[in-house]
This record gives sequence, structure tokens and C-alpha cells, in this order.
Amino acid sequence: MSTDPAGRDVFVAHAFPEQQADIGEITMNYAEVGDPARPAVLLIPEQTGSWWSYEESMALLAEDFHVYAVDLRGQGRSTWTPKRYSLDNFGNDLVRFLSLVVRRPVVVAGNSSGGVLAAWLSAYAMPGQIRGVLCEDPPLFASELVPECGPSIRQAVGPLFALFRDHLGDQWSVGDWAGYRKAAGAAVAGVAFPTDGEVPQNLKEYDPEWARAFVEGTVAANCPHGRLLRQVKTPVLLTHHRRSVDPETGNLMGAISDQQAARARQLMEGAGVRVDYESIPDAAHVMHQADPTKYTEILRRWTTTLL
Amino acid sequence: MSTDPAGRDVFVAHAFPEQQADIGEITMNYAEVGDPARPAVLLIPEQTGSWWSYEESMALLAEDFHVYAVDLRGQGRSTWTPKRYSLDNFGNDLVRFLSLVVRRPVVVAGNSSGGVLAAWLSAYAMPGQIRGVLCEDPPLFASELVPECGPSIRQAVGPLFALFRDHLGDQWSVGDWAGYRKAAGAAVAGVAFPTDGEVPQNLKEYDPEWARAFVEGTVAANCPHGRLLRQVKTPVLLTHHRRSVDPETGNLMGAISDQQAARARQLMEGAGVRVDYESIPDAAHVMHQADPTKYTEILRRWTTTLL
Amino acid sequence: MSTDPAGRDVFVAHAFPEQQADIGEITMNYAEVGDPARPAVLLIPEQTGSWWSYEESMALLAEDFHVYAVDLRGQGRSTWTPKRYSLDNFGNDLVRFLSLVVRRPVVVAGNSSGGVLAAWLSAYAMPGQIRGVLCEDPPLFASELVPECGPSIRQAVGPLFALFRDHLGDQWSVGDWAGYRKAAGAAVAGVAFPTDGEVPQNLKEYDPEWARAFVEGTVAANCPHGRLLRQVKTPVLLTHHRRSVDPETGNLMGAISDQQAARARQLMEGAGVRVDYESIPDAAHVMHQADPTKYTEILRRWTTTLL
Amino acid sequence: MSTDPAGRDVFVAHAFPEQQADIGEITMNYAEVGDPARPAVLLIPEQTGSWWSYEESMALLAEDFHVYAVDLRGQGRSTWTPKRYSLDNFGNDLVRFLSLVVRRPVVVAGNSSGGVLAAWLSAYAMPGQIRGVLCEDPPLFASELVPECGPSIRQAVGPLFALFRDHLGDQWSVGDWAGYRKAAGAAVAGVAFPTDGEVPQNLKEYDPEWARAFVEGTVAANCPHGRLLRQVKTPVLLTHHRRSVDPETGNLMGAISDQQAARARQLMEGAGVRVDYESIPDAAHVMHQADPTKYTEILRRWTTTLL
Repeated sequence: MSTDPAGRDVFVAHAFPEQQADIGEITMNYAEVGDPARPAVLLIPEQTGSWWSYEESMALLAEDFHVYAVDLRGQGRSTWTPKRYSLDNFGNDLVRFLSLVVRRPVVVAGNSSGGVLAAWLSAYAMPGQIRGVLCEDPPLFASELVPECGPSIRQAVGPLFALFRDHLGDQWSVGDWAGYRKAAGAAVAGVAFPTDGEVPQNLKEYDPEWARAFVEGTVAANCPHGRLLRQVKTPVLLTHHRRSVDPETGNLMGAISDQQAARARQLMEGAGVRVDYESIPDAAHVMHQADPTKYTEILRRWTTTLL
Repeated sequence: MSTDPAGRDVFVAHAFPEQQADIGEITMNYAEVGDPARPAVLLIPEQTGSWWSYEESMALLAEDFHVYAVDLRGQGRSTWTPKRYSLDNFGNDLVRFLSLVVRRPVVVAGNSSGGVLAAWLSAYAMPGQIRGVLCEDPPLFASELVPECGPSIRQAVGPLFALFRDHLGDQWSVGDWAGYRKAAGAAVAGVAFPTDGEVPQNLKEYDPEWARAFVEGTVAANCPHGRLLRQVKTPVLLTHHRRSVDPETGNLMGAISDQQAARARQLMEGAGVRVDYESIPDAAHVMHQADPTKYTEILRRWTTTLL
Repeated sequence: MSTDPAGRDVFVAHAFPEQQADIGEITMNYAEVGDPARPAVLLIPEQTGSWWSYEESMALLAEDFHVYAVDLRGQGRSTWTPKRYSLDNFGNDLVRFLSLVVRRPVVVAGNSSGGVLAAWLSAYAMPGQIRGVLCEDPPLFASELVPECGPSIRQAVGPLFALFRDHLGDQWSVGDWAGYRKAAGAAVAGVAFPTDGEVPQNLKEYDPEWARAFVEGTVAANCPHGRLLRQVKTPVLLTHHRRSVDPETGNLMGAISDQQAARARQLMEGAGVRVDYESIPDAAHVMHQADPTKYTEILRRWTTTLL
Repeated sequence: MSTDPAGRDVFVAHAFPEQQADIGEITMNYAEVGDPARPAVLLIPEQTGSWWSYEESMALLAEDFHVYAVDLRGQGRSTWTPKRYSLDNFGNDLVRFLSLVVRRPVVVAGNSSGGVLAAWLSAYAMPGQIRGVLCEDPPLFASELVPECGPSIRQAVGPLFALFRDHLGDQWSVGDWAGYRKAAGAAVAGVAFPTDGEVPQNLKEYDPEWARAFVEGTVAANCPHGRLLRQVKTPVLLTHHRRSVDPETGNLMGAISDQQAARARQLMEGAGVRVDYESIPDAAHVMHQADPTKYTEILRRWTTTLL
């Protein structure tokens, strides 16, 4: 499928209008809502999501914030960039977006890999860009191939991502959805990813090469999570959702283990920043979509504690 | 240093005479003791060991067995083979040794990485070569870079091996023992490896490229442990020695975690073989050297249960 | 598809009967023809081939030799071994086959990757197993990911192998033949691999994970070709078939470049063995199948020069 | 050695004053000279260089330009960032420097890996930042581990970089200069790097982990050169200095082969930009230091052709 979103006929309408910004290598797609006089918030979706996974949350946040929600490279209507999916490239796209479009300090809230990127921005953005970051159930360590702490991606969601890689293919070059369904149904119980029905809208908009980058470890090849966590420079809120351990294999069923969350907190606190932690063991991984009211309440409450 | 043992002037005398067998790519050094009429036992030393770590055990075993103890490639007086340290190459060297020198079914007992190789032989040796294998505190999964279960080598002994790689160098090409001592003393508490004094005899005989192969994962690149364990074909005795978890980092202090040992047993039992397990939490990792009486008693007792 | 050939219903009848040998990890399938009193020859097929690519050559050779032709792991009716396709595992399978089945010194002739394995046997087989080796258009260096000399596999047949990997999948888990045809037709001009029609018989019998192992470099991860060539121990005949350079990309169209062949000869001669070289620029890559008369004449003639 | 330049006591005085800019992850050190009313030029040094390799060139360029010369991360007085040396991180540092310090369109001139980064900026900088780029003898393709065209770094300067990695160590953690000299003197003839005497000033200021990143391929893991070249967006001048082929090994002695330069030009022209090429086969690799008059004349002349 085309790497240029204009060449991909898969999109649908949403509640908020979309805009595009040329930030150099890619065109970044985003939606914006709320009064520009309000504090700015940047929302970063999860892997396999587009900006509109935040659609309902955005409506709720618009009362208090000027909200931006983006598609990362390889998501939604942003450019697909084969061989170039890495935390540092995702992160620097956001640095540029903040510099060129938002142009004032923001609170960042990201989910799943978007939550890892929120931590990345806390550590590595340009001075003054970030006020604080909410990491919503981020797979810290657990989305690395060789993490310094706890289960690797191969002991968590990696086997499912391998099915995306193998059956969908980079840029949907294989497109074997039936084979994916069959393999995923047999292999994976209780995951948050679809294993039946037609291709869901969010996956249509997603470059499966993301999955390859994670399962093969290239996404963090030059960005070990432990090093990133030791360099955060702003307040952080870490929310920790449903998780358990597969009794047979010991695999992590969830985004981040208790041990990994504890180690992440310890390293971030060692960097001298304020770290808040909320364990919400009954929350869905993508809480911002599954329970927008609860999610936005947490975000709203936490931002009031920031200077 | 020379890859040919004849070019390395580091050796000392031992209690049993050494012999060499040309097995093709390498010359394999070994010692032999006991009555050829007795059952044959093959002993495989740990990483950084040579055959003579079994010296005292051999004396005790000689009463009941015809004992062979070997130096693997990269150990002792066997050939050093740069770029070619892998489980499959170690293992096939042993297959050849059994075929050319021992020439009858054996009980295999290996310690640490030698214990992984004992399991390898159970799974992959030629038909009829192996009667049973004792895996003495083997780092199953825990010596892989990306294991299917539990901590990786980077969460265990890997950081120390990285110091061997960096300060000693492949084939001792760097030889910075003082730098190693300083770095190891600072980094690693309570490990079984030396962090002061002169270079110990066993390390003099050891090619530090072994450490590189483990810490960078090439040693098992084509031999995932989980797959190996699913294919064992003989009775197995797994002994499990001192282990704990570093409370700060979560790292494994020991050769194999409880979870990994349980998973290894489960997979091996799934292969249809008899698997015995002895947890000996007060035993040193290299029990065969630290407590030869206890070690040989366990080995002797277990072999009597084999047909 | 099943890794056990008995579970795969894809086979057809051939001119010579097939037998199977249990060599430990795998069951090796082979055909045998000729008078056991004649000199023994071992034939190793090319990647994507099975033993019967030698069918016509075997008929011609049977007058003078006792001929064995094998399926390697992942080929034909031999066992498929996921995650375990490496030169050292292929090679040690052959060492075992020679030890258990042939049981006397042989001349080895292998084509393409089978020719690399012929060189491997010259270097690494057990003492006395190999009389000499014919490497028929072997991709020395050119099938490595990071060769010490000349084009890598990515600058040669690698892009096509990547299509096997992506569209067929390990163990035919994807099976997207239509997608393969479309992609291969667009991407690759003038290659020896099929880009239209139904799945050919040889590919049906082939585990596409072979292609992954080559294109991702794991097949030679612990076996750099340059090191192998420096250790050959028997006479070698290197035949060098059709090759050219793509004027646009500089890619190698052929199995091995002139520079690589020269370097291979130089290194092998440096090992102290006799090296013969025949450039046959009009020969097909799989000459033993395309022109059995010429191929067998070359083999027959060369073997007469061996002691 | 400390990753913070303030903790490293190795620096000497230079002709132009140094300043530091906080750009987020790192502090970037730079020197600035010339009239701010003149056109802006950004100079990027070679691997193992610091900004002051341009000292004499800067004096000459100051008449016509406002010149900035920088230390990249891991060079000179800029921050060292273990595990994070990649083209994308180097490049985005420069994007930030242009955004925060230079704040107007520039002509970029970089040497060696700095020349690759000049091409990177042409392809990937923020809109409007770059007027044109001079790539001074850049190792396009030839500094990749698995290039799409021509020799890899292992067939060029890689073996020397491996000696930096092994004998100096990440962050000079090994510091075995005597061992480096001995190994380099034996292994490498006619290279541009020192093989005797004391540690030169430029190497004292250099983090040898750069060398690891290049020789192990992580530096370009998410930035294949061919893809980069297909996306350049500004005029490019490629200068091509002394190069030859080692007759014995076929290795490239030089930064980029003729075939690679031709392919680079072809791909960049395919991107629709103007590409100029000057072959200067008698020029030193670091011409800007070896022959500042000639270098600055070329740069001055070419900039006049830009709009």
C-alpha cells in the first residue's frame, strides 16, 4: 500500500477536523479542539491506533484544554516511512510538531507505545517544551527486545505482533487477514487485538511494519528504556492497568509488569523528578477509549498539580 | 594469544594425564580415568572452566565409572575457534568425541553451560549415544539473549561477561586484567567470578570470546533453548543450586530462576522423558568442584536409576 | 505445514528409491544408486532443490560411482527444523550421514549453497571422511549478510529470498503464492526462480525459512566464509557459471562474483590444498540439472585426478 | 571517562571561542565566526574530529560567511551519550541547533560521516532550514554494515574502527592505546588514522563508542543510506577524494567507491534535486584540514550557484 496517505483509500470521517503539518521528513496529521487560551495538551495514540482513539476523550477535555491529537508516522493519515520506525524518529517528529505547530509548553499524554514516547519527550525534548507527561499503561521495558528489567516483548505481546508482521506485511504488502485471524485465534487468548471479523478501521490505517520494528527490536535499538528513564526532566504520572502472568508460560498479559513499573519509578525518581503512580488493575489497556470519563478525570486532576 | 594451544604457554600439571583427539575442525583435549569395563561417563565443564575443574570428582567417580572429562573449543588445551563458538558447534564436537573416542553409550554430566550442552546432547546427539544427562545448575533460558521464559543473560551474568569481552578481549587480545578487576569490583557484588588478585589459572586457559558469544547472543542464535528442551530424548536430572533475585534490579543472582527451572521441566516432560529435579539451594554453582563428595554422590545415585 | 515430512502431502515419485536415516535431530532422506564397489560420491542440492535435481546426473554417474544424493533439513522429505537452519547444522548432518550411512571416504559435489557445504565439509568434517569437493557455482561470500569480500546477499539474490520469506512464510505459514508472483515479477528480472505459474514441485518441498535464514544472515552467523575457506583440507574444484553485474544497481546477477571467486581461491590455496577452477560463463547456475552430461563429465574427469 | 565534558580534562585552547547550547538531550558545543549579516554556513566535522578541524577553514570562510562549526554528541565538548549514537540522533541534534541557535537557512558542509549528515539534513531537516549541502568525501553506503550498493564498512575502514572499539573502549573505558598502536600497525597500511605516538588531541576528545556504532551497524540501523538519498530536497555538491582498491582483498581504501558515488548521484538526481560532483583524486580525506585554501575555494564557489 502507498506510503503516502493520499494514495491509501481507507479513511473515514471523524468528529473533529483533521489538519496536516509538513515537519520535514513526514507530513503529520492531527486534530485540534478547544480554546487556544487554555493550557495545551498533546495526545499520542497507542500502537495500532490513530488520533481518533481519543475522539471521546477530546470532547471531554475540550472544556479545559487546547487539545492536539496526532497520528505518528505509520499511523492514520501521517506518512508511512519504511525502515525508519524508531522511538527517536517518532519522538523527534513530536519535537518538531511542538516547535512548529503548538509553539508553547504542553502536557503530554500518551498511551501504550505513545506512553513510552511521553517519557521520551520528558527526557529528550527541546528545553521548555514539556510541562509534564502522563504515561498511560506504557510498555516500559516490556516493549524492548532485550530489556534491562523484566519480561521482553517476546514474553508479552511480541508473538501477536509477529503475526501482524508475517500475515499483514510491511505496508500491508502481504495482506493475509484470513491467515492472521486463524493464527491469532489459535495462538493468543484474551488479547486486546481482534482475532475475528473484517479488518478493523484502526488496523487499516496502521503500517504493520510498526509491529516488525517492535518484535525485532529495531524500534529501541538506539534508545534503551532504562537510559531514557534515568533522564526524564519533568513530572510524570504513570498509570498501570490490567496485568497478569500466564501461569503456564510466565508471559506477561498486560503492558508492563509490577516489577517493571517499580523499576521505572525508581529510575525516574533517581533522575530527581516527581513521579506519581496509579495502579488501576481493572482498567482496559486503552482506557482513554474504553472509559473516557475516568481517563479524562485522571488527566484533568493530575494537570492541576503541575505548576 | 594463539588459537593453537601449543602456542600458549599457560598450562600447569594435573592429577590425570591429558590426551588429544583430532575430531576435524578442532583438537579436543581430555582426561580419562577409571576401568573401561565400567559404565562410561562424560563430564563437560562450566564456562571459564577446563576439564580439571572435575579433578577431585573424577578421583571419586573412578571407582564406579570410566570417566572422560573434556575441554571444549575455547577451553583449556582444546583449539580456540574465533567466530565459531555456538551451542551447535560445541555440541557436535561432543558428538564426534563420543563417536571417535568413547564409542559406547554414556551418561553425560555437565555444569553451567556444560549443563545446557548435556541437554543439547539428549536432544540432538546421534541415536544411541546418550543414556541420560545430568544438567548441573544449567542456565537454561537464562543464558539466552532473548529467552522465551524468564530473565535474559543481560539480567543475569551478562554484565560480568561484558567485562570479560571488553577488558580481556577475544583470544586475550586486550588483556586489561587491571581494568577488569576495577570494573568488576565496582559493578558486581557477590558473583562467583574473581574480582581481585592475579589472573586465575582457569581464566588463563579460557578464550574470552566465549563471553562475547553469550552476552551478544550468537552462541544460541540457531539453538533456542525452548526448542531444544522440547526435543530431549533421554532421562534428565536437573540440579538447581543457589539463586536469588537482586531486590533492587530484579536481576537473577544464580544460573537459572525458579520459573525457568519449572518451565524447563514442563517442556522436557512434554517431550515424554523422565525428568528428575533436585533443588539444592545451598550448593555452589560449580558444586562438582566445591563439594565433590556431594556432587559425585548425586551423580552415582542417579545413574543407578537408569536402565 | 508440518515439520514432519510424513505430515506433508506434497511429494511425487522419482526414478530412484528413497530411504531415510535417523541421524539424531533429523531424519535424512536420500537416494542411492550405483555399485557399492565403486568410489563413493555424495551429492548436495541447491537451495530450493531436493535430491532429485540430480536425478539425471545420478543416472549418468551410476556407471562409475556409488552415488548418494540427500535432502538437507528443510528440503524434500527430510525433517524441517524451525530456527535451526545454519551452515554448521547442515554440515554436521552430513558428517553424521557419512559416519552412519556411507561409512567410507567420499568425493562431495554440491551446488549453490550445497557447494558452500562441500567447502564446509572439506574444512570441518571428521578426519578421513572427505577425498575432495566439487563446489558447483557456490555463493561463497555472496550468500553472507556481511561478507569480508564483494557483494552481500542483499546485493545478489537476497531481495528474491525476502519475497519467499514474506509471501510464503516459515514452513509455508503464509502461503501467498499469488502475492509472491506479483512481487517477484515486478522486482526481479532474469532470475532463475519462477515468477509465474503454479507452485513448482521443488518449492513445495522446500521450507521457506531457509530463505529467511539467508537473507537475515543467521545461516552463517557462526560460520564466516573467509574463515571456512582458510581451513579447507582437501582438493577443491570450483566451477563458476553465468554471472554479470546489473549496470544500474551494481548488484550481482549470479552466484559469486569474479572478485569473490578469486579471493576464495587465494584463501583456499593459502590453506595448502590443491584448488582447481573452471570458469563456465555460459553454464546455468544449476548445471547438474540443466546439462547433466556436461556436469557429470566435469565431475568424472576431476575425480580421476584425486588420489 | 565522564560523559559530561566538564568531567573530562582533555581540552586545549583554539583560535575561536567556544559556546554551548542546551538543545534538550545534549549540550552542543560550537564555535562561531564571521559577520551575522553574511550567509550562514554550518560545518560538521568528520568522525574522530572536533569542530576545530575546521579552524583554518573557518578563518578563510569568515570573510564571506557567518560560520558555525559544531561538535556532535560524542565529539569534543559536546555531551557523550552511550548507546545513542545514530544518524537520526546526530541529525536531529543539528535540526535543533539550527532551530534554536542559527535560526535562518544555512548552507551545510560536512566531512566524512559529517558529510552523510549533510545529506541527512537535506533529506530530513525541518522545512526551510537548508539551502544546500556540501558532502565532503562522505562514506555513503560505505559506512553501512549492509549497504544496498558496494563495499560495506567491514570492507573499508571497519577493521580499524574495530580496533578503536576493542582497545579504547566505550567512553575510553579500556584505554589500551599501546595495544591499539600495535594492532593497528600490524593490520592496517596507509590509513589516515594514527598508528604511533601518543594519543592525538582529536582522539582524546572522541568517544570510541562512535566506532562501535559504525562497525556494528547500529548507527544507521533505522536510516538506510539508499532511502535517505532518495529523499534529498536541496542542491547537493558531492566531492570525492583519494580512493583505491586493495589489490589483495578488494577492500576500499578511501571513503566511498566510484560505484557508490555514481549510485548516490543517481538516486539523488532521481529525487529531483541538482547534484554536482567533483572528483578530486589527489585530495586528502579531510581536505578541509589538509588544504583549507582549496576546500574553502570549492565551498565558496559552489555557494554562489545557490539561489
